Parts: sequence; C-alpha cells; structure tokens
Amino acid sequence: MVHRLPLRPFPVSGAPSPTFAPILRPASSLHLYPRRSFTSTIMAGFKQEPHKLLVIPGPIEVSDEVLYANAHPSVSHMSADFSSVFGDCIRMTREVLYTTTAQPFLISGSGTLGWDQVAANLVESGEHVLVLNSGYFGDSFAECLKVYGANVDEIRAPFGAAATLPDVEKAVLSKKYKIVAFTHVDTSTGVLSDAKGIAETVKRVSPETLVVMDSVCSVASEEIRMDDWRIDVVLTASQKGLGTPPGLSILAASEQAMKVFENRSTPPASYYASWKKWLPIMQSYEKGSAAYFATPPVNLIYAYHVSLTQITKQSPSLEERFKLHKEASQRVKGAAAELGLEQLPLDPAFAANGMTAIYLPPGVAASDLIPRLLKRDVVVAGGLHKDHKEKYFRIGHMGVTVVDKSRGDIDKIIAAMKDSVAEALASKKTA
Amino acid sequence: MVHRLPLRPFPVSGAPSPTFAPILRPASSLHLYPRRSFTSTIMAGFKQEPHKLLVIPGPIEVSDEVLYANAHPSVSHMSADFSSVFGDCIRMTREVLYTTTAQPFLISGSGTLGWDQVAANLVESGEHVLVLNSGYFGDSFAECLKVYGANVDEIRAPFGAAATLPDVEKAVLSKKYKIVAFTHVDTSTGVLSDAKGIAETVKRVSPETLVVMDSVCSVASEEIRMDDWRIDVVLTASQKGLGTPPGLSILAASEQAMKVFENRSTPPASYYASWKKWLPIMQSYEKGSAAYFATPPVNLIYAYHVSLTQITKQSPSLEERFKLHKEASQRVKGAAAELGLEQLPLDPAFAANGMTAIYLPPGVAASDLIPRLLKRDVVVAGGLHKDHKEKYFRIGHMGVTVVDKSRGDIDKIIAAMKDSVAEALASKKTA
Repeated sequence: MVHRLPLRPFPVSGAPSPTFAPILRPASSLHLYPRRSFTSTIMAGFKQEPHKLLVIPGPIEVSDEVLYANAHPSVSHMSADFSSVFGDCIRMTREVLYTTTAQPFLISGSGTLGWDQVAANLVESGEHVLVLNSGYFGDSFAECLKVYGANVDEIRAPFGAAATLPDVEKAVLSKKYKIVAFTHVDTSTGVLSDAKGIAETVKRVSPETLVVMDSVCSVASEEIRMDDWRIDVVLTASQKGLGTPPGLSILAASEQAMKVFENRSTPPASYYASWKKWLPIMQSYEKGSAAYFATPPVNLIYAYHVSLTQITKQSPSLEERFKLHKEASQRVKGAAAELGLEQLPLDPAFAANGMTAIYLPPGVAASDLIPRLLKRDVVVAGGLHKDHKEKYFRIGHMGVTVVDKSRGDIDKIIAAMKDSVAEALASKKTA
Repeated sequence: MVHRLPLRPFPVSGAPSPTFAPILRPASSLHLYPRRSFTSTIMAGFKQEPHKLLVIPGPIEVSDEVLYANAHPSVSHMSADFSSVFGDCIRMTREVLYTTTAQPFLISGSGTLGWDQVAANLVESGEHVLVLNSGYFGDSFAECLKVYGANVDEIRAPFGAAATLPDVEKAVLSKKYKIVAFTHVDTSTGVLSDAKGIAETVKRVSPETLVVMDSVCSVASEEIRMDDWRIDVVLTASQKGLGTPPGLSILAASEQAMKVFENRSTPPASYYASWKKWLPIMQSYEKGSAAYFATPPVNLIYAYHVSLTQITKQSPSLEERFKLHKEASQRVKGAAAELGLEQLPLDPAFAANGMTAIYLPPGVAASDLIPRLLKRDVVVAGGLHKDHKEKYFRIGHMGVTVVDKSRGDIDKIIAAMKDSVAEALASKKTA
C-alpha cells in the first residue's frame, strides 16, 4: 500500500495551515514521501542573501532549501510533526554511513561533544585507549579522553602523515586497548587516514577493541562504510559534508559499542553527554513518538532533514557525491601544484577529498594571501596546527560547492587562488 | 567621535556584497550601531510560514527578524564579522541580566548543558550542594550534580510550592554548602522562586556559598538583577524568554564564581563543558577577535543577536517587557480562574509570569483538551511533573506573544482555552 501524504514540513503559503498537525505514518514510509518536490514547489521564494563564498573546511556553504528550513516557524519538540522529522533524520544518518544496525545520537552541541560522548560512555577510569594522532584534532581528542580517566597512548604521525598500518598492528599486539581512536580527516592538516585499513587491522588482532573514528571533516565527503569496515563509532557534526549550519553533534555507535556501553561497571561520567539519558530519547523519536531529556535544536533538525534528504534521496547519489568530491579535490590540488605550491599531506593517496591544505609560497605570509582571496569574495582558512600554523592555508570543498556545478564555486576558488598568489608574489618583488 | 558604520549583518539584497568583510570598530561602540533600522529596512521581504500558534513554555514563537537571521548565509566562525556579533551577544547577555561584571558563556547545546557547566566547573568531588527543589527540573539538576561527585541535600517543596526562606536559612546555618542551587521558574510546575530573597538569605548567613539559579524559563520574562541580588550563576537557554530557536546554552558566572573556579584543586570534570577551554574563547570574542575551541552555532548566534537587540535596544524596554509579561500572565490566569480552573502554584505571588500551569477540569483528560486547542491552531503543553503529569496542562506566554500585542496571541489563547474547555465539558455530558 502506498501512502500519499501531504507535503511537509512547510505548508503552501496562504493555504489553510495544515502544518504541524499530527500526521500518522508508518516509520518505514520515508521513501514514499514526495520530498523531492519540496524544494521546487514550496521554496521558490527563498534565496539567501548575496555573500562571500565560504570555502573553509567547515562551516561550508549551505543550500537555500536547508537555510530556509533553518528559518522554520517554531514547533514543539514534542509534536508529532517534529517527531517524524527527527525519526527520519536518525534513519537517514544511518544511510549516509552505510549502516543498518548502528545507533545514531543527534544532540545539540558542536562536533567536540562527540569526543565527550565517547570518553564518558565507552571508557571507564584507568582503561587503555590508543589514539592515532594525525594533527590538532588528535591532540584534542586525546586530551578529552584523559579528562574522563583514560590511559592514553598515542602514535604520533609525522606532520602531514597518518599512522601506518604496521605501526597500528604493532601497538595493538603490544597491549590490550579498549579503544583505538583516530581522525578520519584531520581538519588541521587535510590528512586522510586509511579508515578501512585501520579497522581491519585492529579487528583482526583484537576484535574486542572498539574502533572510534572522528569523522567531523569526512562524513558525506569521504566514503565511510561503517558496517562493512567494522567501525564502532563514527562521530561528526552538521556543518561540514552534511551541509547544515553548525550546532548538531552527530554520532553513530555500533551494536558492539552499545554492548560495551551497557556493560559498564560505573555510570557514564557526564550528565549531558550520557547515553543512558539519550538512548531512550533516540529510540522513542525513531518510533515516531516524542520524548524529553533536553530540548533538541528544533530548527536545525528541520535543516538537517532537508540536507539529508538532498544527500540520500536526490540526485546525485551518495556514491556520485564521493566521486564529485574527488574530482573537485583533484582540480583544486592540481591548480595548487600548477602554481608550484605543495600540499601538507606527504602522500597524495592520504589527502582528504573534502579539503586541501597548502603550504604558502616562499616569503608569502598568510596575512599576505588570505585577504587577497577575501577581496575576491573567497573566504579560505589559515593554518591550525600549533607548530606550523603560519606556514599554510586551507580550502574546503564539500557539499553544494562541489555537488552543484552550476554555482561555479570550484572555478571561482581556483581563479581567486591563482590571481591572489600572483598578486602576493608580485608585491614581494616590488617591496 | 561617532562611528557611522554600514548596516549589518545583512546586506541590502542585490547591492554589491559588503557582508562579512572585516569591519573594524571599537568593542564599546555597540550603542552607536543603527541596528534599530535593521528590521524595517532590510527584512521587509521575509515572513515566516503560516503555522499554529506555539504557546508551550518553550520553544516559543520567534519573530520574523530572528528567524531570518537564523537563515543567515554561512559565515566563518573565525571572521571579523562573526566575532563582532558574538562579542555583542556577550555584552547584551549581561544587559539582560543587569550585570556588569559577570562572565557570560555562550555554548552550542541545550539548557541542560548549563547544569553540567555548574557541576563540572564549580563543584569538586565530595563537596556539599543544597538544591531547593520545586519540581522536575530540581530533580534533574540534583541528579546532574551527583554525576560530578557532589554531595547533594535537597529541600523538597510540596507540589506547587517553593522552599521558604526560613527553610533555606535553617539549612544554610546547619551545614556549609559550596552551592545553593534553585530553579527560578520550574517549567514543570510554573512555580516562581523568590530569587532575591533566596540569594539575600544565603549570602547573609554564608557569603562564601555560591547562589546558582536555573533560569531557563525565566530570563527576559522575569526580572533578574544578577549583581544587585548577588546571584552567582544564571543559566538559561535561547528558546524561551530570549526568543531565539533552541540550541544555545547561555550562562553567566559572577566574579565570585569565577574565583571559585580558578581556585579549584582538581581540573574541571568535563571536556566540552570546561570553562578552562571556554573562558579564553569568550574573552577573545568579546575583544572582537575570533578564537577556536569548538565551532559555535554561527547562524543561531546571528539569530540570538537580533533577538537580544530587540530586547535590549528597542521598544519596549526590558522593564516594560517584565510588566507586559505580568499583564499577559494575569490575563491568562484570570481567564482560567473564570473557567473555574485552578493553578498549580499554591500561592499566586509565586506563580511565573512567563507561563501558566493549570489543573484540568474534573473528569477531563489532557487528551480530551489539548487536541481541541490544537484544532483551534493553539499548541499548548501537557503536564511534565512525574507524579502529576496527567492532571494539568501548561501555557507559555513569553517573548513576541506577549510583547507584540498586534499579533493578538493572548486573545487567541484565551478564546481557544474557553471554547475548548466548554467543548470538552459538553462532550463529557453527552457521553
């Protein structure tokens, strides 16, 4: 039986207001929703304000449809309408990660809150955790784990590299770790870790060890096969590949991780980040029924819903999205190489597809270059890694910037980079 | 010298885009901004979609201007434009609380995160905390404090009441408490605590004890004089009296509280909620310079900025707002009394001005009444207190619903309540 249901979440302007009334539907009916027409029919009127092109490695450019959903009229977090949207978000989060069994958690907060979720729910005081450190975010994740009592060992990769699989194997053979944690794409360096290889190595040597991946800068821009690769935790945030404004901590935990959580001998070491609190809430919303622990970021959930719908139900497909990110990445990286600029990642095979970290030309400071890009309405980011931040800059290429070619964002980035580098070098010569 | 600066944060549509370019201005120049014209000149085009009137005790109805700011194009959290807006938000948060010296923290998260902030930063394991419990939120705050190792004593008020000042005095005389915590308005019961009296009592008996007030359901709808009353912590969220979508944990800590924090003998017991991490970020943004710990909810900060501007810089004034909330509250409470319905708060002097909690008519269930209000496009909330939630319902009257009389929200609430109660009672008779 096919359910034909009214368009939601926005009513046609001026029509009698059917919005936010309880609409009953089976939890499995998501694919029956004619959401594809949502954009074209209802939102024709909304265009975001003209602005400079934001191509830092997150927050990224957001589509008009997503932004408009962020301006959704206030709705009760306990309403049937919101429950159904929240439930959809939980299901579509699984789709993006290619998992059918993991438990998503969608919690008001930044990506950083995902670390606290891992540390407070999966680690007990004194347990051993191995962090594969490929930059700034590895340092911080390790620090967070220690706050909650973990004994942290680290494999610190050279700047521009990630831990090698033999190093990981050796470490996991040498000690029983509760968790091996790594950053899929370290936003500070643009280094891409071999997620599949790391998980395969850890699970082969020590199947009980949980594989935890900080994917803040990789979900929806890099391929992640959570179930196939046996990743136990993927943690991310809304404002990067997921194409939504910042403010949502998004995490998915495997069945194995949830068992480890359930078998804790001590209670979770956080209140706000406690899965004891959040698990029943997520389960209830997924069944289409509201539940309360802390008020969810209602508007942002509507926005996330629109973005997830674009990613999982519309064209291009998720696989095509990964390809488009690779293509755009190659174009930006190629243009930098043509300018004689080197990338931070030492091995091109382990460079992110959603961002590029590039060394500045010799003699040119970030403050010589970044304002020249800004003058051309292109906003890029400076360095972030504590020891090297003055030496490089970063460009994000994720989401609509990559997927919607009609925007011409990649052309604009490349042209602005070429002109700005030439101008900066010329000003050095005349100086 | 008067700085005349371009309107921000939105450019005039179609004009060359000056938005998000660095604009230099002294940190103290907030009052020089011609923000008052922001609403009328720039946003004429945006109207939120028609929807049912949301009058639960938060999230509340939000103005078109605030919603439109929530649909702000993506901006770098490290940009000069955003830094200045964030700095303004910190300063205006102080204004709303009548404090010149407290340190605000604006962190991505729900109001609940404020409890973790208090528990993780101001309490060390084994220290004594007294919770004045006036409902559901007192229970939860106490539970949160215990997660972080506090020894919690409670004064549990009878249902519909708050702790009396003699009870508070007796308790504070009997034991040295690090903190006395209470809920200003318990959203589950609509009971208003005597914030001024509690703080006066505690500080008279035990000046070192910190007075912590959960003000999630009271900031900007109830008078709070943080400095005059010597409240050490006010914690709240964006989606109630502050008239912004949910997703921002807002807290202000007095100088005395910050000294207690600085003199901790153990590190803060949370990573994400650690003031060690957030204090330098808040200080930097207040000086107009971006700093990074975790990505702030950029769009929501723009939205909060617009709402704070409406509250602190526009008409009606903050004092007038409090009066308008009292008036609206009296109208709703009066209408309920005319219908023969009783309020939860036992003493009208200790009933909130931003919400009303009303017992259902005899023989009428929440499921008999609330859908009838919904049919009239008025969304109210059911009960929340665990022992009594089937017996009452709750109406929120905060923000634009109260302040913008041209909306007619209060009339609509009262008419819907009268008609729905009559209909529910009539259906009982015919059944």
